[in-house]
Amino acid sequence: MRELYHLPLSPFCRKVRIALKEKGLRFALKTERVWERREAFLAMNPAGTVPVLVEADGAVLADSRAIVEYLEEIRPRPGFLGETSALRAETRRLVAWFDEKMYAEATRNILGEKVQKRYRGRTGPDSGTVRAGLANIRVHLDYIAWLVERRVWLAGDSFGLADMAAAAQLSCIDYLGDVPWSRHEGARDWYARVKSRPSFRSLLDDRLPGLPPASHYDDLDFRAEAAIRP
Amino acid sequence: MRELYHLPLSPFCRKVRIALKEKGLRFALKTERVWERREAFLAMNPAGTVPVLVEADGAVLADSRAIVEYLEEIRPRPGFLGETSALRAETRRLVAWFDEKMYAEATRNILGEKVQKRYRGRTGPDSGTVRAGLANIRVHLDYIAWLVERRVWLAGDSFGLADMAAAAQLSCIDYLGDVPWSRHEGARDWYARVKSRPSFRSLLDDRLPGLPPASHYDDLDFRAEAAIRP
Repeated sequence: MRELYHLPLSPFCRKVRIALKEKGLRFALKTERVWERREAFLAMNPAGTVPVLVEADGAVLADSRAIVEYLEEIRPRPGFLGETSALRAETRRLVAWFDEKMYAEATRNILGEKVQKRYRGRTGPDSGTVRAGLANIRVHLDYIAWLVERRVWLAGDSFGLADMAAAAQLSCIDYLGDVPWSRHEGARDWYARVKSRPSFRSLLDDRLPGLPPASHYDDLDFRAEAAIRP
Repeated sequence: MRELYHLPLSPFCRKVRIALKEKGLRFALKTERVWERREAFLAMNPAGTVPVLVEADGAVLADSRAIVEYLEEIRPRPGFLGETSALRAETRRLVAWFDEKMYAEATRNILGEKVQKRYRGRTGPDSGTVRAGLANIRVHLDYIAWLVERRVWLAGDSFGLADMAAAAQLSCIDYLGDVPWSRHEGARDWYARVKSRPSFRSLLDDRLPGLPPASHYDDLDFRAEAAIRP
């Protein structure tokens, strides 16, 4: 059986989990505490990061974008990149946007301080860094709204890798209840569409020991609740 | 004519320049001072980064990995990713290694302090950051040597995108004379092979105003010189 080494609140692992489910590919999840730098794991991926996908034949794949491109190649339907080279370039541009820019500006600042530090036994969150992340997230919610005013999904007419990358980032921040949904209706409506997909289900079932999710985290009708908040 | 908006010492732009040349695709270079945040440029790429490729028909492509994947699609031969899905995944894993890990650990610390700060009119380089970059570069030189002990090129038997990504990072640091070649013969011999390719020529001709390159920068026989240094 295919195995995915992961961490529950890694947006990059979540992107791969959604992609595997959407492709209808079965896999087993293995939690990897990357900060322990386990030797057998480093032998598989010297970068020491998750996700790492191990195929049934023992082939090892690392890096979330390399893994998803691989999944597109071995199981082309449904396709997540788009039908033309121009569309695929647009999808990949947006994946880079969310994987790199949104992660660096928002997700890492919030998650790194509130979750990763905690699990690695370091000191408490730096409130300035968290505040920066919370301010930056608004830019990305606005960008998502801007895109879905012009397109059905983020990169075009079909649900695809750009949606998975963006939703994976947001879902981690949403676990902590830190997405200001009520002020970003366009992004919220798009996220509700992603959240209701069966491929998203297992992400909503994730629970971290000692860190329960925000109350609306796994609620598919979270829009009504979020709307009445200040 | 195809246009590439770039900065001379951007490793990501250099990777795309090498790829375009290796594919035999003609293009004109346009320097974009990204820190000026020119409105017409931000309209092309809201991330505000280079490289940006504008096709003859006006199509705009941003993000270096999206651009190179696009080039692979519109001009498949010569191929830079590999013949099998497993090989392509390995190539993409290594591209992520050099684009993300080596850039964050080495290139950015050195180049960001010595060059980008200077051009953006900020204060002088932080010596601690530069020292960290110089220490970290050794890990990546060792990794390159480890790979070419086992393979002809970094990802396999053919020159490809992993080589371009790694050489693009190194060439920027080498412009400043900060690569400790004499202690890393394996990486040096591999780099000499990359450097002698015609696709690399225009990179070696780059000159930044007020910042001449290290003396061996455009020397294809730099190995002899580097070897007698301490």
